[in-house]
Amino acid sequence: MVYFYVFPNKIDDYSPFGYFHFGGTHTMTRIAILGATGYTALELIKILLRHPEVEIVAVTSRQEGQPPIAMIHPSLTNRLDLRLEDLSPAEVAARAECVFSCLPHGASASIVAPLLEAGARVIDFSADYRLDTPESYAEWYGQKHADPARVGKTPYGLPELFREQIPPANLVANPGCYTTSAILALVPLLKAGLIDPKTIIIDSKSGVSGAGRTPKLTTLYAECNESISAYNIGRHRHTPEIEQILGRASGKTVEVIFTPHLVPMDRGILSTTYSQPLVEASEEKLMQLFRDFYADEPFVRVVEHLPGTKDSSYTNFCDLTIRIVRGRVLTISCLDNLIKGASGAAVQNFNLMFGYPETTAL
Amino acid sequence: MVYFYVFPNKIDDYSPFGYFHFGGTHTMTRIAILGATGYTALELIKILLRHPEVEIVAVTSRQEGQPPIAMIHPSLTNRLDLRLEDLSPAEVAARAECVFSCLPHGASASIVAPLLEAGARVIDFSADYRLDTPESYAEWYGQKHADPARVGKTPYGLPELFREQIPPANLVANPGCYTTSAILALVPLLKAGLIDPKTIIIDSKSGVSGAGRTPKLTTLYAECNESISAYNIGRHRHTPEIEQILGRASGKTVEVIFTPHLVPMDRGILSTTYSQPLVEASEEKLMQLFRDFYADEPFVRVVEHLPGTKDSSYTNFCDLTIRIVRGRVLTISCLDNLIKGASGAAVQNFNLMFGYPETTAL
Amino acid sequence: MVYFYVFPNKIDDYSPFGYFHFGGTHTMTRIAILGATGYTALELIKILLRHPEVEIVAVTSRQEGQPPIAMIHPSLTNRLDLRLEDLSPAEVAARAECVFSCLPHGASASIVAPLLEAGARVIDFSADYRLDTPESYAEWYGQKHADPARVGKTPYGLPELFREQIPPANLVANPGCYTTSAILALVPLLKAGLIDPKTIIIDSKSGVSGAGRTPKLTTLYAECNESISAYNIGRHRHTPEIEQILGRASGKTVEVIFTPHLVPMDRGILSTTYSQPLVEASEEKLMQLFRDFYADEPFVRVVEHLPGTKDSSYTNFCDLTIRIVRGRVLTISCLDNLIKGASGAAVQNFNLMFGYPETTAL
Amino acid sequence: MVYFYVFPNKIDDYSPFGYFHFGGTHTMTRIAILGATGYTALELIKILLRHPEVEIVAVTSRQEGQPPIAMIHPSLTNRLDLRLEDLSPAEVAARAECVFSCLPHGASASIVAPLLEAGARVIDFSADYRLDTPESYAEWYGQKHADPARVGKTPYGLPELFREQIPPANLVANPGCYTTSAILALVPLLKAGLIDPKTIIIDSKSGVSGAGRTPKLTTLYAECNESISAYNIGRHRHTPEIEQILGRASGKTVEVIFTPHLVPMDRGILSTTYSQPLVEASEEKLMQLFRDFYADEPFVRVVEHLPGTKDSSYTNFCDLTIRIVRGRVLTISCLDNLIKGASGAAVQNFNLMFGYPETTAL
Repeated sequence: MVYFYVFPNKIDDYSPFGYFHFGGTHTMTRIAILGATGYTALELIKILLRHPEVEIVAVTSRQEGQPPIAMIHPSLTNRLDLRLEDLSPAEVAARAECVFSCLPHGASASIVAPLLEAGARVIDFSADYRLDTPESYAEWYGQKHADPARVGKTPYGLPELFREQIPPANLVANPGCYTTSAILALVPLLKAGLIDPKTIIIDSKSGVSGAGRTPKLTTLYAECNESISAYNIGRHRHTPEIEQILGRASGKTVEVIFTPHLVPMDRGILSTTYSQPLVEASEEKLMQLFRDFYADEPFVRVVEHLPGTKDSSYTNFCDLTIRIVRGRVLTISCLDNLIKGASGAAVQNFNLMFGYPETTAL
Repeated sequence: MVYFYVFPNKIDDYSPFGYFHFGGTHTMTRIAILGATGYTALELIKILLRHPEVEIVAVTSRQEGQPPIAMIHPSLTNRLDLRLEDLSPAEVAARAECVFSCLPHGASASIVAPLLEAGARVIDFSADYRLDTPESYAEWYGQKHADPARVGKTPYGLPELFREQIPPANLVANPGCYTTSAILALVPLLKAGLIDPKTIIIDSKSGVSGAGRTPKLTTLYAECNESISAYNIGRHRHTPEIEQILGRASGKTVEVIFTPHLVPMDRGILSTTYSQPLVEASEEKLMQLFRDFYADEPFVRVVEHLPGTKDSSYTNFCDLTIRIVRGRVLTISCLDNLIKGASGAAVQNFNLMFGYPETTAL
Repeated sequence: MVYFYVFPNKIDDYSPFGYFHFGGTHTMTRIAILGATGYTALELIKILLRHPEVEIVAVTSRQEGQPPIAMIHPSLTNRLDLRLEDLSPAEVAARAECVFSCLPHGASASIVAPLLEAGARVIDFSADYRLDTPESYAEWYGQKHADPARVGKTPYGLPELFREQIPPANLVANPGCYTTSAILALVPLLKAGLIDPKTIIIDSKSGVSGAGRTPKLTTLYAECNESISAYNIGRHRHTPEIEQILGRASGKTVEVIFTPHLVPMDRGILSTTYSQPLVEASEEKLMQLFRDFYADEPFVRVVEHLPGTKDSSYTNFCDLTIRIVRGRVLTISCLDNLIKGASGAAVQNFNLMFGYPETTAL
Repeated sequence: MVYFYVFPNKIDDYSPFGYFHFGGTHTMTRIAILGATGYTALELIKILLRHPEVEIVAVTSRQEGQPPIAMIHPSLTNRLDLRLEDLSPAEVAARAECVFSCLPHGASASIVAPLLEAGARVIDFSADYRLDTPESYAEWYGQKHADPARVGKTPYGLPELFREQIPPANLVANPGCYTTSAILALVPLLKAGLIDPKTIIIDSKSGVSGAGRTPKLTTLYAECNESISAYNIGRHRHTPEIEQILGRASGKTVEVIFTPHLVPMDRGILSTTYSQPLVEASEEKLMQLFRDFYADEPFVRVVEHLPGTKDSSYTNFCDLTIRIVRGRVLTISCLDNLIKGASGAAVQNFNLMFGYPETTAL
């Protein structure tokens, strides 16, 4: 015998969950998404539409007026029946228990405090709460931080390293895409003291969606297609994030050379890292170290083969492997920059914060 | 209170369904997939891994030996722990209640009979059971049909047109990708007698995955990329399928000119059709006809805007719109050739055959 | 014995012509390019850098200040040592004998008159001088024409149809990209009275560079990639151009249904046309008609196979073939939208206007 | 006054050179191309068709029978009127003065000797004559060398480093694509003693055409598209070539870590290198070193900006820049793998061998 279960603003027929029996009364977690016009917000919505325990109650945008969100994201037609609204933090918090902020850095910092005070819990996609100090933030983001008290005290939303900090948190800093691919590949080696933390080179390659949805010459199809290029060498803002989080996780002072490249594909990041070993270790021994380190992790796959970004596209997996070449330690890590690199990680954090199985909808 | 539910050969952590309570004892439908090395089989597996009511018990392949399927499809690493096997129909039927055959045409026809006799129910991805007569099959596929008795008597697995035939069926012919995009766009007009069934032009554009995974010069990256070309003009095998199914659905004798094009993208089909109207009708009137015709269909979206294939990529939706230009009726339809055009449609048929909500896992 | 020949603002080493002996004194044609920041201008410059008889003396742009052109087009580094300038028509005409205007429609019409009065000859890439009447221009371009007297009296720069009009002209209207692909495919059939001029359907597919270099959401990489879509159905501005030029060439009143599609590739146009024949004719007879019609044309290739756009990419060729399906006449034509569809055609016209062999540099 | 000049098997109209006066009697260099069915051969033919001083007299292929070459390469339709032939070295040498061998390694070594004995001069695209010793060849290519006497004694066809060796040579080893991008970026630093030759990391990214035209699963469109992956880490055959040629040029023992990646684009290579400096040097000082080193080179562009592969696509340029990050020296180099990385370099060598200006047709 089967009960039908109504998802507000989802079409029942579309929900694969519509016929489960949850037993007794049941309420879902009310969610708001700020800055809902970009690619990470779209991906987040698609994941949350598969989540049986959430209800999206608000999607906000400053610039776009109040069109139905399906006008901005046609792929949401018949899937999410909401209009974009321009709401104050108080209005958002009045409706939603959990707020995903997809606002740009700076804008996030200015609304997090009022949201928290109004009782909402926040998952912030921006870089505003990822770094260790307001000074470091000011140096790399060229502006004073609007909410300095929380900088360095906010859990970094990478459950593979900081799982225990996330459930009690009211604010979580969702990691950067490049950062996640680099950290997951390097932290087992650093914690084991196997590599010299001052010799790390990270050569990363990303799809174009990582550059956002605001029209720019550099992300036009005819500029990016059939071309690969490096950008922001030595000054990409994920550099301090990688160093500081690797430092937090390993207790070491880490210095990296980080070189991002733009690749003609929609999504996917591949990071190739090179480091100087501190002790002799065979490839097999290092592979085993990685397998052990991530043995209980649902979303990290330690693989023998050389992964391509396509293997983890549209999933929350990070694929990892390791090689030794001429005594240097190489790692290759792949993930989907919009999912494990952004919205999938955010839902993983949300599940931990609200007591749902960590893998729900992922 | 929460029960943990074990999916055989799925990693619990990955299942978004792991924590539902189904109440009482519960058994899942056992599934086998024949010809599991191609793109449609991979997509099928990914959908079925999201399905809470199925267990994949066998994946077969003649040519590939018995490697773990994750060696052939690295994206399945840690997701499906099965080896490819070379099994007889009897062996398959002994394990599985439902068999998805992703074998090429001809090969399917030769194993369907033994599978059915052994008690399995079959969803056939090939063209073997789609046409009206063995003669038409022989003409277009250049071979005698191995199981002529079932040709023309097998339900065509397009629920939008033949939903009532599918639940009782033991064999369903899963539709072709181009075919679905053309039929869904034209059948409302034909049934309403609004267009001349002898004037239909279908200009279709498909991504490269539709050409399969067998290495060929014509599907090499450096051949397809940065190029669009037409192929099989006037002799593509979906031509009779479109005509005969449109005929079944509308009761009219339909003749189409079908021109497929290969587009440099992985997935997606866009079909542009042109037909001569039989009666005056405004664009708005025709849009309303489409809205009414598909009002209860979970997977057909009648849209005002001109859809791009990306809007329905990785979904089971078909997006449809209509225009009138210089008195000619134009339709535009988009779908994902691997999902609504193949594996998603197959799961939709499976759900109907086995009494699950039609949208489960889709 | 060998003379070295200096190309002003070209690096000698790069010129494949540097070592020819031209005999006696020799002067080159001085050229200016207006609106030099876009893709057609870039392609034009690359072609002209291969031209042994021209000197580029000015490249203009309103919005971009006066940076070296290589800053706007890095591929021109060490190849063209000029800065973008904002020059008046008089200043341009004082320097250059021939002006290629890559300005948008409207802007071109406002500077052509002063350029001609100042003694320059002009090749206009915009649509301003392509149509038959100012009324038709106003209807399709939504503005009054700034130079109505020349509308309908300007040679249309398609040498395959109007070669004799081009050498004496001081102003030539360079054809549109879609237009060229459609006209070259249809005009032999229309002139021979083989198809009904009221039954023509043109289903065209274009690469993204055709949409220009101004940042727009619709031409962002992550919007276009992995997607095909139709746009401007029934209202694309090349519709009247196709009809009027086919009318001029064939003496018939032509009505077309024109459906452009955006394809994820940089360059290339494929047009598939469908028309109702007026007389029985075999495919072979029509192929022969095409071969005869274009027998002396250096840039039209009538081919047996189905051409892909890649076959003519980076060339000034238009590839053409013809099929008959169910009594309907189909043509397939391919060209590079930036070359035969724009800058290559412009140089072809330039060569005719200035007495150089028509194929020079192409 | 103008002479018309006939290019055997070229259509006059297409030649931009048809109207030059060469003065007195004039004969062209007769060329044969072995293994003409691949991408490098196609690119080579396109370049040679622009060369005013050559005549292509034979194109050979073992596997393909004797079809017109335009059947194998449709883009050559109306441009090169030759059939593929299966010719002996003697037959080839009887017709041609210069032979470009696009045969795979091993096959080349077996025909070079007879070709040279028969009086032809050879430019070999394979790796057979690039390494220093037959032992190193056997180690990396897994076979005994068929012509060991010439290994280590054959000029390496990189004019930027070995220009003086090329004009007198009867056999030139044309460089590998990755190799050229790495060598041009590193040799100025090594010769100046600025970097430690044992600390070099080369992270390279290549388009798919580099993998050749033989159908393979790994180069299918639907496998490569939307994915980037590393391959042959630590064992790619360009590794010894890079080390030995850098050694020849710098007199140092060089050890590199070379990591190639496959990028979803047709053509283009970007190499990012990282090395440990031996002396302090500013970015500006190193840029100046590069500018001076390549001051007279027509095909190396030292640029301030970060180049993309598109800037040098379809040209014979290599674009280079340099950065210092955290005291490490980084270089970025871009080139077209089919032109500067193969066929353009081959024509550059040809021009030097036969006394034509080095840049002719490039």
